[in-house]
Amino acid sequence: MEKERQALQTWKDRVAKELDSVVAFWLQHSHDREHGGFFTCLGRNGQVYDDLKYVWLQGRQVWMYCRLYRNFERFRRAEILDAAKAGGEFLLRFARVAPPAKKCAFVLTRDGRPMKVQRTIFSECFYTIAMNELWRVTKETCYQRDGQVVLENVSEDGKELSGCLGRHQNPGHTLEAGWFLLQYAVRKDDPKLRTYIIDKFLLLPFHSGWDPEHGGLFYFQDADGLCPTQLEWDMKLWWPHSEAMIAFLMGYSDSGDPALLKLFNQVAEYTFRHFRDPDFGEWFGYLNREGKVTLTIKGGPFKGCFHVPRCLAMCEQILEALLCRLQPDPVV
Amino acid sequence: MEKERQALQTWKDRVAKELDSVVAFWLQHSHDREHGGFFTCLGRNGQVYDDLKYVWLQGRQVWMYCRLYRNFERFRRAEILDAAKAGGEFLLRFARVAPPAKKCAFVLTRDGRPMKVQRTIFSECFYTIAMNELWRVTKETCYQRDGQVVLENVSEDGKELSGCLGRHQNPGHTLEAGWFLLQYAVRKDDPKLRTYIIDKFLLLPFHSGWDPEHGGLFYFQDADGLCPTQLEWDMKLWWPHSEAMIAFLMGYSDSGDPALLKLFNQVAEYTFRHFRDPDFGEWFGYLNREGKVTLTIKGGPFKGCFHVPRCLAMCEQILEALLCRLQPDPVV
Repeated sequence: MEKERQALQTWKDRVAKELDSVVAFWLQHSHDREHGGFFTCLGRNGQVYDDLKYVWLQGRQVWMYCRLYRNFERFRRAEILDAAKAGGEFLLRFARVAPPAKKCAFVLTRDGRPMKVQRTIFSECFYTIAMNELWRVTKETCYQRDGQVVLENVSEDGKELSGCLGRHQNPGHTLEAGWFLLQYAVRKDDPKLRTYIIDKFLLLPFHSGWDPEHGGLFYFQDADGLCPTQLEWDMKLWWPHSEAMIAFLMGYSDSGDPALLKLFNQVAEYTFRHFRDPDFGEWFGYLNREGKVTLTIKGGPFKGCFHVPRCLAMCEQILEALLCRLQPDPVV
Repeated sequence: MEKERQALQTWKDRVAKELDSVVAFWLQHSHDREHGGFFTCLGRNGQVYDDLKYVWLQGRQVWMYCRLYRNFERFRRAEILDAAKAGGEFLLRFARVAPPAKKCAFVLTRDGRPMKVQRTIFSECFYTIAMNELWRVTKETCYQRDGQVVLENVSEDGKELSGCLGRHQNPGHTLEAGWFLLQYAVRKDDPKLRTYIIDKFLLLPFHSGWDPEHGGLFYFQDADGLCPTQLEWDMKLWWPHSEAMIAFLMGYSDSGDPALLKLFNQVAEYTFRHFRDPDFGEWFGYLNREGKVTLTIKGGPFKGCFHVPRCLAMCEQILEALLCRLQPDPVV
């Protein structure tokens, strides 16, 4: 018990320190003080290499800052709240191109001119769909072949599609769905559902998606073990690893199963060793199969102030709650 | 002279043998004898891993078969002509979804049902545009920064765009454009233009795009030397290398400059060593930066019976013509 407590305490300190460093990176480099909103295309040391503003990353940074402000005393700072407000104002002013038409800008120039417009945006509906609908959807559709695989794409009536599209698997998405569903199971107070989720949405994608040769989670896989057609299939991306950290720590916290803490440890050690940049802060996003950094950028069209701080913030909170529970009762 | 003749003869034999092997691969594995048309999603040993039919690859295979039939006595076989006709019939029957609307199917099911439809297709206009318009376009637009870089994307009035999009470079596309333009220069009998093209569209992209550490041409680059945002930027793809083989051999044939033969040799040696599959025929398409095969497929949504046989067929023809020229005059 004491050994376990120490391990959790070590991770909590490590994670909290890393969260401070990551938040500092975005505060220092991403704020556009002239036009509002956030730069997300940041090079290794934080320099802006493109000033386009991706709406979904703008929205995610606002969400992240609000969450940090609300949940962490050390982040309850005017600087963070003001930046979140400025980001929100930028979005309100520029993202909604034609209010009655339900169209939104997806990419904006630095000063808010629309570059790409589309009917709905992922960022708008992501959380609502994810939190409220995912369980129903995944339970009825993505989960196939008598419980042996989770598939990304299925037909409208929930059947497996033919060819590569149907066989496409994304271990990181499955693990992310896994912790969404774990939260649902906890709210419903349903331990049977929890066991099922841990088995099918955490352990299954981990065991099939973890690279036995070089470590790390593959980006894409084929359910029949064939070669995927996506060029980046064997790369190791930061976000599946941050989702896996959340999933295993939450699974351990909910179930108390030490095997899940072991898996958290395995994923978190790989992640801190390979993605973290001790020199300039934040994490690299893209490694080759062997774990070598192949893109030195810290942010880009798909990586912003979101997955890394969300992972660290959630892990810090879960670890803190676990440590509280392990505290010996005070002597009366 | 004799040494050069021998080198050319060795390459001609090597290339001709490889062309036989590649054509045999497609003849054996890609013909759909039930529904017509061609499978292009073929695994390493030729097995079909998806039966979708990509219209642009169907069209390219028809083109390739016709060209082989027309230009090579050893390929003037009923099997090849019949397969080309069957492919053409399949396209005529199924690719044109709504004739008056100028819409075409882009992806078809095995039996010809449209999966994706779009306004125009690359395959339809590729050659017309490429051969007739490219010179004008490239001369006026893509070529920027006082002659120091060729850019993929420019504004409608030919100016450099800001950000990553504007700085985007594709060495393989530039080299491919290079040999299109060389053919134009030869037709116009314009040696000054030829020198200019060799300098800017062959040597420039080669020297900036060749990986000094591991060899091979990078897929994408940033004109300012920043890190590209495409995950696959540092991968080595088969088609830039086959385009480079054509470009340097054609450049040597047109100019007689031995430096270009040396570059052909460098690219062709890398290509034959890394992409060729001596066990099952055809070439691998996708290597990591270090030259290791990362996708074992021989064909897919973007790789069909086109770049490899086109490269080998053109190189064989150019080498044959060069050897003819080097033949000592017969004793009268």
